Amino acid sequence: MNDPSIFRTSGGVTAPQGFTAAGVRCGLKSGSEDLAVIYTALPATAAALFTRNRICAAPIVISRKHLRHKEFHAIVVNAGNANACTGHQGLKDALEMTELTAHCLGLRPREVLVASTGIIGRKMDMDKIRQGIKEACKVLSSEGNESCSRAILTTDLQPKTAARMFYLGKKEIPAIIGGIAKGSGMIHPNMATMLAFLTTDVNIEHKCLNKALKIAVDKTFNMITVDGDTSTNDSVFILANGKAGTPLIEDKKTEEFEIFSTALGEVCLDLARQIAADGEGATCLVRVEVEGALSKRDAKAVAKSIASSNLVKTAIFGRDPNWGRILCAVGYSGAKINPDKVSLWIGSEQVVERGCPLHDFNRETASAALKEKEVLIRVSLGQGKSTATAYTCDLTYDYIRINAEYHT
Amino acid sequence: MNDPSIFRTSGGVTAPQGFTAAGVRCGLKSGSEDLAVIYTALPATAAALFTRNRICAAPIVISRKHLRHKEFHAIVVNAGNANACTGHQGLKDALEMTELTAHCLGLRPREVLVASTGIIGRKMDMDKIRQGIKEACKVLSSEGNESCSRAILTTDLQPKTAARMFYLGKKEIPAIIGGIAKGSGMIHPNMATMLAFLTTDVNIEHKCLNKALKIAVDKTFNMITVDGDTSTNDSVFILANGKAGTPLIEDKKTEEFEIFSTALGEVCLDLARQIAADGEGATCLVRVEVEGALSKRDAKAVAKSIASSNLVKTAIFGRDPNWGRILCAVGYSGAKINPDKVSLWIGSEQVVERGCPLHDFNRETASAALKEKEVLIRVSLGQGKSTATAYTCDLTYDYIRINAEYHT
Repeated sequence: MNDPSIFRTSGGVTAPQGFTAAGVRCGLKSGSEDLAVIYTALPATAAALFTRNRICAAPIVISRKHLRHKEFHAIVVNAGNANACTGHQGLKDALEMTELTAHCLGLRPREVLVASTGIIGRKMDMDKIRQGIKEACKVLSSEGNESCSRAILTTDLQPKTAARMFYLGKKEIPAIIGGIAKGSGMIHPNMATMLAFLTTDVNIEHKCLNKALKIAVDKTFNMITVDGDTSTNDSVFILANGKAGTPLIEDKKTEEFEIFSTALGEVCLDLARQIAADGEGATCLVRVEVEGALSKRDAKAVAKSIASSNLVKTAIFGRDPNWGRILCAVGYSGAKINPDKVSLWIGSEQVVERGCPLHDFNRETASAALKEKEVLIRVSLGQGKSTATAYTCDLTYDYIRINAEYHT
Repeated sequence: MNDPSIFRTSGGVTAPQGFTAAGVRCGLKSGSEDLAVIYTALPATAAALFTRNRICAAPIVISRKHLRHKEFHAIVVNAGNANACTGHQGLKDALEMTELTAHCLGLRPREVLVASTGIIGRKMDMDKIRQGIKEACKVLSSEGNESCSRAILTTDLQPKTAARMFYLGKKEIPAIIGGIAKGSGMIHPNMATMLAFLTTDVNIEHKCLNKALKIAVDKTFNMITVDGDTSTNDSVFILANGKAGTPLIEDKKTEEFEIFSTALGEVCLDLARQIAADGEGATCLVRVEVEGALSKRDAKAVAKSIASSNLVKTAIFGRDPNWGRILCAVGYSGAKINPDKVSLWIGSEQVVERGCPLHDFNRETASAALKEKEVLIRVSLGQGKSTATAYTCDLTYDYIRINAEYHT
């Protein structure tokens, strides 16, 4: 997927021109920054995708409403409290977060988007939030990505940040897409508890931005799973301020759209992999590659089925090349498969050939592949040409510890 | 669901008249019986339901073939080797198991059904199996339920056995349904790695037996989940030999069918609960009751969604009344729900009332309910009249230990 004309760069959400950010500590969660603001003085086009959970957090309701408008300048985010299942007061609080940010930055509330992550069902401590917003707006800076990326975390161990530089138009004007994300538990296809904030200085029309975001999220954030739960707060936002001066992308059939879309996919994939690798209690990232499916849908179903299997994930934690569990997950994926055509690899070692286990496969090579920081499981269904990749992590004692010891 | 005219009794598969059984040790698994035979001299009608995994074990293929015929006398089962992903040789081995059992008991091979459970992808050690079948056929007895129920286990800690007595017909002739089961890991709706063998001395036509089995399994074995994986070997068998002399059940609209169906449901529920309670590493049984759904399908979707959530199951292990995780699982179940109508109870303690968390709920009562051997989670969707119940267990360190340390 890596395009040679797309380059890694640093700076996350502040990498593109015209964006500043800040993360401050307001006391909603202990020990780290917990309130973040991302800002662009130039008005930005925005697109967003939200959780498919029928129970949506208040900030999603407010952001959805604001997204009916066209121009945006800021996103305000808090960690520590999800503002979910908080009723009418929750909506008022989420709205107030946008009002206060707007006030501090001289904007209209509808130009501000809002997101929250943390505990469900607890009333927001608005005194702390108010204090945090005021402080964050004061210290917005093009160096703010680091504190901002920490401020959106919950049980994550590592901040997640990515950026890519590329060239658009005949004059090959440089442009950047940057992003930060939070994940950890409850990560599942269809964007379980995860937040991602993306920024770009590309000049792009709303409908193209929306389309590019959908394509990218489908292949990346929607293909990661940590524990199968989909949260009330999942959101991916992108702001595009056009500051790079690149030609306006207004047609999905142009080369410019293609390049932008590819670069956005790379940023999202980078963040998605970081999320899976940092799943609660994880000791490794697991990449599940499926090929030879009759349809894209089947390929995705098989990849997700393997990536979601507790039995596969505990086997990987045990570093055991248990191809039986993998094959089993292929079988119950719901995809159209022919058991006699399924082949399977653990790392580079083939363990099943067209339905037959290779009893003399090299166990040492397979076990070594399971000890890598990134474990590859590859499945060929031998039937068609569709492919899909899913990401997950292993299932460990620490997952249980984190989630059983966590108390409401 | 308990009917006052249906009585618990002992003896499992040998409780109904005319059935004998035996479990012997042939060396396929260490430390316990691993080969079982269930037998009836009177020919029996049979029905069976099998895994929906597209990758089926060899014994399922052979049993399906035999089930095209009408009369059956025996079931042969081994534990320790699943005879799955074993290709042509596996089919030959499964067939030979029926041939050998038939030979020992003076039957035709097609009158014998076969099942296996254990490791996937390993060639059957037929020398041991042959020895075991010969021995088991010699020691068949009406006292054989105990050894038989142990011989079908894999990582289960407890044998699972149940039986119910009831009266059929105008003369109120007593009849019995008995059964044994194995479960533990990989238990999931749609019959993940579980085997159940049911016997009855009721006189019943094939199509009625089939229907009654489907109804019972749908409400019981298909509503339990341990880890969401569906295995290659799941099977539920029932043999009905008519020995009790009850009037032939040949119509699904009769009172007799109703009583039989209810009693069969009770036996299956008893076994299903034992399976969930003995899930790998489980410290408690969890019952999830859903009411007020718009459809049966929605009710089931919500119950299964909660019962399958790793986050809910670790919270129960941590004895934490984390209603947020439960509500979250309601939200992503795919069922039609209205968040503002959902109410939630942990044990008898209400924690959410029509979408609003009850912040002053009695945490001690809720925590105490989570310390019961059987934990109840109750959800009212407040929309319709459909109900469903699912069963699961908590997710613990021992689940990880068992499945990560288990090596192929």
